[in-house]
Amino acid sequence: MENKEIWLETLITNSPQEGRELAIKMARKSIATIQTNAETRNNMRSDYANDTAQLIASANVIAIEFQTIAAANNYWKKQ
Amino acid sequence: MENKEIWLETLITNSPQEGRELAIKMARKSIATIQTNAETRNNMRSDYANDTAQLIASANVIAIEFQTIAAANNYWKKQ
Amino acid sequence: MENKEIWLETLITNSPQEGRELAIKMARKSIATIQTNAETRNNMRSDYANDTAQLIASANVIAIEFQTIAAANNYWKKQ
Amino acid sequence: MENKEIWLETLITNSPQEGRELAIKMARKSIATIQTNAETRNNMRSDYANDTAQLIASANVIAIEFQTIAAANNYWKKQ
Amino acid sequence: MENKEIWLETLITNSPQEGRELAIKMARKSIATIQTNAETRNNMRSDYANDTAQLIASANVIAIEFQTIAAANNYWKKQ
Amino acid sequence: MENKEIWLETLITNSPQEGRELAIKMARKSIATIQTNAETRNNMRSDYANDTAQLIASANVIAIEFQTIAAANNYWKKQ
Repeated sequence: MENKEIWLETLITNSPQEGRELAIKMARKSIATIQTNAETRNNMRSDYANDTAQLIASANVIAIEFQTIAAANNYWKKQ
Repeated sequence: MENKEIWLETLITNSPQEGRELAIKMARKSIATIQTNAETRNNMRSDYANDTAQLIASANVIAIEFQTIAAANNYWKKQ
Repeated sequence: MENKEIWLETLITNSPQEGRELAIKMARKSIATIQTNAETRNNMRSDYANDTAQLIASANVIAIEFQTIAAANNYWKKQ
Repeated sequence: MENKEIWLETLITNSPQEGRELAIKMARKSIATIQTNAETRNNMRSDYANDTAQLIASANVIAIEFQTIAAANNYWKKQ
Repeated sequence: MENKEIWLETLITNSPQEGRELAIKMARKSIATIQTNAETRNNMRSDYANDTAQLIASANVIAIEFQTIAAANNYWKKQ
Repeated sequence: MENKEIWLETLITNSPQEGRELAIKMARKSIATIQTNAETRNNMRSDYANDTAQLIASANVIAIEFQTIAAANNYWKKQ
């Protein structure tokens, strides 16, 4: 089962930028959980990569995931 | 009554990844509460699994549910 | 006046699952406040119950309402 | 100027239900600020009151406004 | 450069209603940053002012911006 | 690899307005991560800059990103 791989052990990252990368990964994993066929996902890629409305909607998801990650990391503030 | 099954006893999970799984379950249960016919839901599955805009919208829901779960778990930080 | 019934006395619920039920109720009440005709609402039901995009949008609303309820209940943590 | 009327003196309400009413008022005021013509707004009412997708989108706005109001009221918890 | 004007010195406002006004300003500035031509923006105004779906989407943005402003102002609670 | 440039070292900014600029940058970087071809992105620019629905959706993303940045900066309150 694809989702039984452990891909999310922690929300803690070394930097805000790594937090962005994790946010993108989380968004992608959500989609892969619903559309489990990797080839189908690849074939659909141009559907959204060339549609600005869908690109903006994707950015909305990333922004929400990043909120969670940023809070988990206490905004990467030095203590 | 379908919804009388107890499916959400706690928001606490052992790991972030289990938190993701719970977020997905919560999103699915919302849909099942509105469209109560399981066969209809199955028949509609390809409507969204093959539509990138709907996959992205689904990821948006999962991201919001996960925010709640992550906060409930204090972001799975070791104390 | 429909909305003068008292339907929301508290955000506190006994369990997460009751919190989900309240979230769904809150979403439905919002719609009933705008479309006040119950028969019209019933007639429109198939419009969204059979449209996956609208089911996903409904799940988005439920997820947001649940965030509020979960915070109000301190995530149902034992103290 | 329509918006110079003072309509939002406080976010504090006596009950969660009054908080819902305020959330709805806030959403409506946002729309009235953009579409300032009351007659035009009235004429457009059936556009969204009879369109489930727009009713759901409206419920999304109300849910977000209510989050703010609920936090302001400390979720109406007795202290 | 249009955006070099200083238009956001603080998130603190004297009242919730001024907070609403700032939320609307922030939403408008976002749009002006992407569509930098003021005449084009003016010409597009009827596109959304007469489209209820877009009015609702605008209200969604205002609600999110207001969440931030309300938190910044500690919900305008007397201390 | 485009994304290996370090573009997000911190969420801390000197002012709310710089926070807005960072929010816009974060939204743009999300889109650039999905549509990696800069020329394609430039060609698509008029797709959303002239479509009010997409401008509003973009403003929604910026509002969410700004929430995170504002929290990270403790709303730029003097301590």
